Amino acid sequence: MSSFNLAGEEELFKHLHGGNLERAMEKYGISSEKIIDFSANINPLGFSSKAGEAIIKNLDRLSHYPDPECKEAKKEISGYFKIDYENIILGNGSTELIYLIVQTLKPKKVLIPIPTFCEYERALNNNNVPINFYKLKEEQEFSISISEIISQLAGIDLVFLCNPNNPTGTFLPKKEMLTLVKEVQKRKTFLVLDEAFIDLYEKESFIKEIKNYDHLIVLRSLTKFYGLPGLRIGFGASNPKLIEKLEAQKIPWSVNCLAQIAVREMLKDEKFIKQSKSFLLEEKDFFYQELSNIGRWKVYKPSANFIFIKLLGNISSEGLMEQLAKKGILIRDCSNFKGLEKGKFIRVAVRTRKENIKLLKELKLILR
Amino acid sequence: MSSFNLAGEEELFKHLHGGNLERAMEKYGISSEKIIDFSANINPLGFSSKAGEAIIKNLDRLSHYPDPECKEAKKEISGYFKIDYENIILGNGSTELIYLIVQTLKPKKVLIPIPTFCEYERALNNNNVPINFYKLKEEQEFSISISEIISQLAGIDLVFLCNPNNPTGTFLPKKEMLTLVKEVQKRKTFLVLDEAFIDLYEKESFIKEIKNYDHLIVLRSLTKFYGLPGLRIGFGASNPKLIEKLEAQKIPWSVNCLAQIAVREMLKDEKFIKQSKSFLLEEKDFFYQELSNIGRWKVYKPSANFIFIKLLGNISSEGLMEQLAKKGILIRDCSNFKGLEKGKFIRVAVRTRKENIKLLKELKLILR
Repeated sequence: MSSFNLAGEEELFKHLHGGNLERAMEKYGISSEKIIDFSANINPLGFSSKAGEAIIKNLDRLSHYPDPECKEAKKEISGYFKIDYENIILGNGSTELIYLIVQTLKPKKVLIPIPTFCEYERALNNNNVPINFYKLKEEQEFSISISEIISQLAGIDLVFLCNPNNPTGTFLPKKEMLTLVKEVQKRKTFLVLDEAFIDLYEKESFIKEIKNYDHLIVLRSLTKFYGLPGLRIGFGASNPKLIEKLEAQKIPWSVNCLAQIAVREMLKDEKFIKQSKSFLLEEKDFFYQELSNIGRWKVYKPSANFIFIKLLGNISSEGLMEQLAKKGILIRDCSNFKGLEKGKFIRVAVRTRKENIKLLKELKLILR
Repeated sequence: MSSFNLAGEEELFKHLHGGNLERAMEKYGISSEKIIDFSANINPLGFSSKAGEAIIKNLDRLSHYPDPECKEAKKEISGYFKIDYENIILGNGSTELIYLIVQTLKPKKVLIPIPTFCEYERALNNNNVPINFYKLKEEQEFSISISEIISQLAGIDLVFLCNPNNPTGTFLPKKEMLTLVKEVQKRKTFLVLDEAFIDLYEKESFIKEIKNYDHLIVLRSLTKFYGLPGLRIGFGASNPKLIEKLEAQKIPWSVNCLAQIAVREMLKDEKFIKQSKSFLLEEKDFFYQELSNIGRWKVYKPSANFIFIKLLGNISSEGLMEQLAKKGILIRDCSNFKGLEKGKFIRVAVRTRKENIKLLKELKLILR
């Protein structure tokens, strides 16, 4: 216990996500106002003005502890997503819930299809849980084959699956996913379905199926599509007994009171939600088409507000990232995603038309 | 792992802190504006207006992820408290750090003098760590005897100590504490010194001694004295190697961006800090004197912004709490603090003169 040695692997995970503006500002000497951030997958339209107004109006509420049970925010989520109050737990981003699930369920062996979001692995490593990585095949466009996942389930008591998958953007429709959900239910294996990027295809979400499968845990972000990652809020849906157990293990007050207030307002802001959906659906198709037209690389068909690309020429992902950063544009170099060839893959968020055109222009200059 | 049974003890811990306005509003049917909350120990002057203005001015910052390393906030803390940047870790309240320390150090046996803040026990229970409780003696006014603590250290690898202690308000001056700090250093036992309520006696804090004792971890709240509990921020100070290890285990982005912005402004607001200190120092003495004058109970001399009281008559702490709640006044019934006789103890925060007089008046009516 007195040993302070840092495991090498822990070092690898340190803050290597997209969206770290502070690091970019420091490294490339650009001010945050001038950065166009394609490295984090956040709604480029910002956040609901109603949420912003409610935060300002209720600023005095900061003088009190947040409601540890997040009752009002839960009620709003329950109404909006049409799931029962008892099926919901809120977290400091869905990331807190990833860690909480691992600490609460204490799985013995976990399956993770890769490449994917690295926090599953980090949460498991922190708790010394052995992991079976299942490498998605590049020749199959990194698509998730349900039958292959099922063939890997022996001895596994928990699976983390990100759908749409980050960073690849591949997506399994509900129909196909149902086969896996039924299989894990039969085997009493837990399935954590991370739907952080499913907002554009809400009908495909499994949250409404929670009542039928007590080994299913669905995670949802409330800050990516809703444009508020700085505020930290997400939720999980599962059976009421597991939700109660997670609540009993959770750090109190982890969801700050402004986040709770924002949830209540933004889910009522139908106009913003509708506008964001139609904008992102259209813009992602435009951006995908235009990025594909550049040629000299492989652009994967997106199913969320980000696009995954394989570089084919001599330029490395790091080199491209650095050249763009010097112009105030941040993209995500995917070299630190386990299961991807280093230096070959990038991920770009879908932003506004003007910003997307600016990136396209710079890319053409660099890649020509 | 498939078992969902809730341990009885976990149930006990569920949200039984002061400051749960939502629960009070629901139970007693009073609106939050009309509640005077003596149950949470928060600065009654509110928070720095400079922090509030900075939050409003920087609301757009919510569209980006928080800096996971909290660099700017750390720099401000480093400057204000005169400790090195490398000695600091920020948390979602100091409560997050309590859990993080337990998960990172994985102690084998922990000593907790009781009664005290219940989150140490909860964090240890969540991680199945055995605890030796050392019961502070009522006949010694619950004061902490360093020699007695030292006599309990055999086989212990971590001690949680709250100073000033919550809920008793007892306080060990630096001179006396130094004996314990040196002893744990010699034995290589970790000492977590929770100084969440030390702001009125800043000179007594051990944060500046961090460099000299690598088995010392000091926790500080930035929301109680600074009046922002709804925002969630606190910090820990320890040796750089342990800080690095804690950072490697920490959930990313747990400190939201508005909390990071607020820290930077409020620590610069000398006027607010000075005003709060002199107000609270004077008001706690006034309130202590007046509460003592009521008679029929024992009032413990306070060393922070809250006052601990033992009821001596027939009325129970729960009965008194309920009678006051019906009038819109919340106090803290201390029945669920381990190590205290149930029904006998209450804790009241020091609030504004007008509010304190209102409580004194109601108490006189009930207790006469």
